[in-house]
Amino acid sequence: MTSRTARHKDDPPSADDDNAAATSVEKLFEAKPVPPWTKQITVRAILVSAVLSFAFTFIVMKLNLTTGIIPSLNVSAGLLGFFFVKTWTKVLSQSGFLKTPFTRQENTVIQTCVVAASGIAFSGGFGSYLFGMSSVIANQSPEGNTAADIKNPTLGWMIAFLFVVSFLGLFSVLPLRKIMIVDFKLTYPSGTATANLINGFHTPEGAELAKKQVSKLGKFFSFSFLWSFFQWFFTAGDDCGFVNFPTFGLRAYQNKFYFDFSATYVGVGMICPYIINVSLLIGGILSWAVMWPLIADKKGDWYDAKLKQSSLQGLQGYKVFIAIAMILGDGLYNFVKVLGRTLSGLYKQFYKKDSVVDPTDDSSHGHPPSTSYDEKRRTELFLKDQIPIWFSIVGYVTIAVISTITLPFIFHQLKWYYIIVIYIIAPALAFCNAYGCGLTDWSLASTYGKLAIFCIGAWAGSNGGGVLAGLAACGVMMNIVSTASDLMQDFKTGYMTLASPRSMFVSQVVGTAMGCIISPCVFWLFYKAFGSLGSPDSQYPAPYALVYRNMAILGVDGFSALPRYCLTLCCVFFVGAIVINLIRDLVGNKYSRFIPVPMAMAIPFYIGSYFAIDMCLGSLILFIWEKVNKENAEAFGSAVASGLICGDGIWTLPSSILALAGVQPPICMKFLSRATNAKVDTFLG
Amino acid sequence: MTSRTARHKDDPPSADDDNAAATSVEKLFEAKPVPPWTKQITVRAILVSAVLSFAFTFIVMKLNLTTGIIPSLNVSAGLLGFFFVKTWTKVLSQSGFLKTPFTRQENTVIQTCVVAASGIAFSGGFGSYLFGMSSVIANQSPEGNTAADIKNPTLGWMIAFLFVVSFLGLFSVLPLRKIMIVDFKLTYPSGTATANLINGFHTPEGAELAKKQVSKLGKFFSFSFLWSFFQWFFTAGDDCGFVNFPTFGLRAYQNKFYFDFSATYVGVGMICPYIINVSLLIGGILSWAVMWPLIADKKGDWYDAKLKQSSLQGLQGYKVFIAIAMILGDGLYNFVKVLGRTLSGLYKQFYKKDSVVDPTDDSSHGHPPSTSYDEKRRTELFLKDQIPIWFSIVGYVTIAVISTITLPFIFHQLKWYYIIVIYIIAPALAFCNAYGCGLTDWSLASTYGKLAIFCIGAWAGSNGGGVLAGLAACGVMMNIVSTASDLMQDFKTGYMTLASPRSMFVSQVVGTAMGCIISPCVFWLFYKAFGSLGSPDSQYPAPYALVYRNMAILGVDGFSALPRYCLTLCCVFFVGAIVINLIRDLVGNKYSRFIPVPMAMAIPFYIGSYFAIDMCLGSLILFIWEKVNKENAEAFGSAVASGLICGDGIWTLPSSILALAGVQPPICMKFLSRATNAKVDTFLG
Repeated sequence: MTSRTARHKDDPPSADDDNAAATSVEKLFEAKPVPPWTKQITVRAILVSAVLSFAFTFIVMKLNLTTGIIPSLNVSAGLLGFFFVKTWTKVLSQSGFLKTPFTRQENTVIQTCVVAASGIAFSGGFGSYLFGMSSVIANQSPEGNTAADIKNPTLGWMIAFLFVVSFLGLFSVLPLRKIMIVDFKLTYPSGTATANLINGFHTPEGAELAKKQVSKLGKFFSFSFLWSFFQWFFTAGDDCGFVNFPTFGLRAYQNKFYFDFSATYVGVGMICPYIINVSLLIGGILSWAVMWPLIADKKGDWYDAKLKQSSLQGLQGYKVFIAIAMILGDGLYNFVKVLGRTLSGLYKQFYKKDSVVDPTDDSSHGHPPSTSYDEKRRTELFLKDQIPIWFSIVGYVTIAVISTITLPFIFHQLKWYYIIVIYIIAPALAFCNAYGCGLTDWSLASTYGKLAIFCIGAWAGSNGGGVLAGLAACGVMMNIVSTASDLMQDFKTGYMTLASPRSMFVSQVVGTAMGCIISPCVFWLFYKAFGSLGSPDSQYPAPYALVYRNMAILGVDGFSALPRYCLTLCCVFFVGAIVINLIRDLVGNKYSRFIPVPMAMAIPFYIGSYFAIDMCLGSLILFIWEKVNKENAEAFGSAVASGLICGDGIWTLPSSILALAGVQPPICMKFLSRATNAKVDTFLG
Repeated sequence: MTSRTARHKDDPPSADDDNAAATSVEKLFEAKPVPPWTKQITVRAILVSAVLSFAFTFIVMKLNLTTGIIPSLNVSAGLLGFFFVKTWTKVLSQSGFLKTPFTRQENTVIQTCVVAASGIAFSGGFGSYLFGMSSVIANQSPEGNTAADIKNPTLGWMIAFLFVVSFLGLFSVLPLRKIMIVDFKLTYPSGTATANLINGFHTPEGAELAKKQVSKLGKFFSFSFLWSFFQWFFTAGDDCGFVNFPTFGLRAYQNKFYFDFSATYVGVGMICPYIINVSLLIGGILSWAVMWPLIADKKGDWYDAKLKQSSLQGLQGYKVFIAIAMILGDGLYNFVKVLGRTLSGLYKQFYKKDSVVDPTDDSSHGHPPSTSYDEKRRTELFLKDQIPIWFSIVGYVTIAVISTITLPFIFHQLKWYYIIVIYIIAPALAFCNAYGCGLTDWSLASTYGKLAIFCIGAWAGSNGGGVLAGLAACGVMMNIVSTASDLMQDFKTGYMTLASPRSMFVSQVVGTAMGCIISPCVFWLFYKAFGSLGSPDSQYPAPYALVYRNMAILGVDGFSALPRYCLTLCCVFFVGAIVINLIRDLVGNKYSRFIPVPMAMAIPFYIGSYFAIDMCLGSLILFIWEKVNKENAEAFGSAVASGLICGDGIWTLPSSILALAGVQPPICMKFLSRATNAKVDTFLG
């Protein structure tokens, strides 16, 4: 663990370190007792969560079916949860009925529950794999629309499917919480921001700096919110608005190099360590400025020149599969490393008969233990309520058995042995995703889902209903990895707000159960209310549903359908990721912090560098701020970052409501080349 | 003078006051001797001026012939003058040949000379009235293209014309310099910014605050420059780029309410007093949000509905003429007031036999004299080198007589009695323009020129070659009022850099003489080099040439051609301006600073509120800055403002060079309504 753990300790912009240096958050909360975990989950919290979950599911579903791009809703959930319960307790305390005060732990429980529930609306695939099984989507594709490859949505099987697959992810990463949160000190930017927000709300009065931080957070929250609001006006139509601003010119824009004015990712960049942001940028430059243009030159040679841009048999295939290879390489290396250390720790425990030996304790390897009061107190409470490992294992195995039996009844194309294979591999991928999300705030659930489409689709083949098998496998995989990263994100929030891991886990389970019922119902409402759901020209085209189905169709032909040298390149990058990690671990702290992280490098391979540029700008702002006034930057850096993330996040709510109400933005800010502009001017007269 | 002078004393954001409160600029310069005025004008200064004048004339001419919009070049002239001479003196001092050190007075002389010379490129009308006389332009208009109304450009008559009209403006406002600069303390934002820049360059070493100010100025200079540079990339085509950003929506944009991201005017807003910026905004709202929409509703009733947007017989007529009426009302009121005070002061002087009595001295009316060291020293030096009033009068009359005799030989349509009438009215208008420019940085020379077109055109009538007479009269008028405001702007710079009024005047005369030769030659070059000069589709369409000619054609029909009630409204606003001024003077300081200034209100009537919004933003920034850190704001406010103005100003140079080199911006940032965008998207793909 040496170097990877140490990296996060040494790098300046870690949110925890900042707070610790400036003041101790937990010292301010010292007077406030932390309720036992059973008291953290209250009836009012569950009720508020249910209301918010319903609202958020509606929003996510709408986004699923229109563009398919879903932002993180953690912050919104935390904030709205606070306002709801605060109003509730205020009314009750004025009428004299209030018994339990509103604690930040309860706030965190609400946030966790709502995120879990609305997360199902995304991972349930109502805009992607699940809806991609329907005949509406199948008929838009020339191939694979036989009866064996179609399954139209009905409320019954959707709910059943979600119930048997959605809880596996929780159990799969549950035992890793200490390693991820306490030992690795992963940042989980959204989770950290939410925790700062919640801590800010609940800070006891008289805490001057905290007040100032909250005021700073409030200012940047307002700025970020208003900025998003302002941006909205200019987004009538595709390619419109600031998110498509070709900051570095149109050619750079075509290669996904632009600053997209997203306050969220500038804030995320301020929270993430410098090396992560730099790795992202290096990855972006390596791929979009070097590799893809070179491969594009081989058009017609390496792959068919007539293919669509989005075809996985063309350039897009290289992007997706090389990224996956690199992520898998990094993830696997770390998984093996953690496993090794865990086993050696366990071995030592048995051998030495020590009562409490941390299997991954750095102090036994010559590193001093962390000394900040906040960290001590948080770690203490985080480790107080243990969840035994046997519980996770028993839970995982039980649900795996149930779903292995049940799933073939829902999708008879999905054989029981496919499911067993998925359930054997899934924990490793869940770990990879939770780990990557902790580093970069970017959950790659859909990437892992795509991997499942290909593997299982290829295995099942076209005769055996491979398309449907692939899509169903994608669902199983996505639910596992997505809930895994959500859970870990919430554990981070819980860690920073002294909420018990047990209450976090229980509220996550409750939220997931809610989501398994609410999401299909809301989808059913959309499906029944809008007859044209899924047709390309309608208000709800659900673009990703067709994309996923097409990937599945491609998948049944196996990896042989991939473009030339793609598999070779994948192997190179897979090995490369492992080698870079090895070097990072071997050279020691002093140099390892200058070596990029492969996991972070891989993300822009597929989606481009625009968010990396936002994040580097965040780094740059923090860097200059630290040069100008270090004390100030340390005290307020993470508050500013959280404000930026939260404001942009909350704007999602009114913007979705506007969209639902049919209010469209009035102006399109368009970017045209000079030649195109001349044509357009002539056309417009 | 009571209230008007006092307003500028009380209002916080006056540049002089700021510096005085923070530190004394002149104390820093105390050790540096001020050379006598004859030593301020050096041979090297004249040589550098000649080189820069040629460069700037080229730029202005290009802008004249492409868009017709010319920004202020004061700052660029100051900065480049500094760099040129500084390099020169450095080379000489290293080689041991340097005799005279480079002083800020010499720097100001260069700046003045260059501005005067390049000013002629604008006021010479090569993109407006003068080129509007040519047959190329005349043939584009259905009416008034008889031989009597056409005069094609030749080098001889252009130079002769400019020489006989360009020096009148200098003599006309020369005696008012003390009243404008010392008594009224008018801000002249560009002049002030230039002076701050020049002072910054020449500040003796060891002056800590000045160094910090220069560093602040440098930072904002770079920011403003880079921002303009960035903006440039998005301006391929008309209506493109940040200058057309519909910040408050498309309807507001159509009514000229938008923030145009101009760093220049944000800076100007930070230098101008709050009440001026607020007046501009009130004027903008009154006109574009209330009056023009109401008048537009009368389309077809008050004026012909089929007229072009730009027709002065339609809505545009109301805009132009009501603005002119209000400006004239305010200008006349102040002119009469100043004249009254001057006469009464002169009377007292004779009566009491006091050796030095200031005709407009506030102290005699119960106001304490200004006490800041800077002001004292500057006023002392400004008043040291007197220019006798008889000199101005003799100069004005002599040149007036010469040009009254000469002009009818050049334009036989322009009768000698027209010219005499113009020369009787001109000083009043020159005062109005110099005064308004001092308040708002906006020279309305072309507005006064349009007035002359109408008056003289109507008088001459269509049979007597009225079109050409109008255009020629416009030229006479524009040259007078434009050079008058330029001179006063330079006097302000001179006042703040301790340059003698005499050296300022002489360098202005030298610069004007240079301009009278350089400008026609540069125009001749363009005219001969590009055969298609003036044709609408060419690279150099000279849009304003046709506009001016059309106005002249309209003018020969007299004021009766104006739309209904326009003359009535003009009278109302003319009287209104006088009444508001009267109220301002009667209520006293306490309340007068809450009453808007009519002169400032009138400017957005015609051109819209966008620059008023920039300026109000500047005010707002300064206001908040003062709330947060008053000391800091006072010390650095004007440095930041100057930086913003200078950076944007200097960008004009490279942007013009790019344009001359034929490098066009690559991207168009376009703003379309949702409906139009949908159409365009269909068209494009």
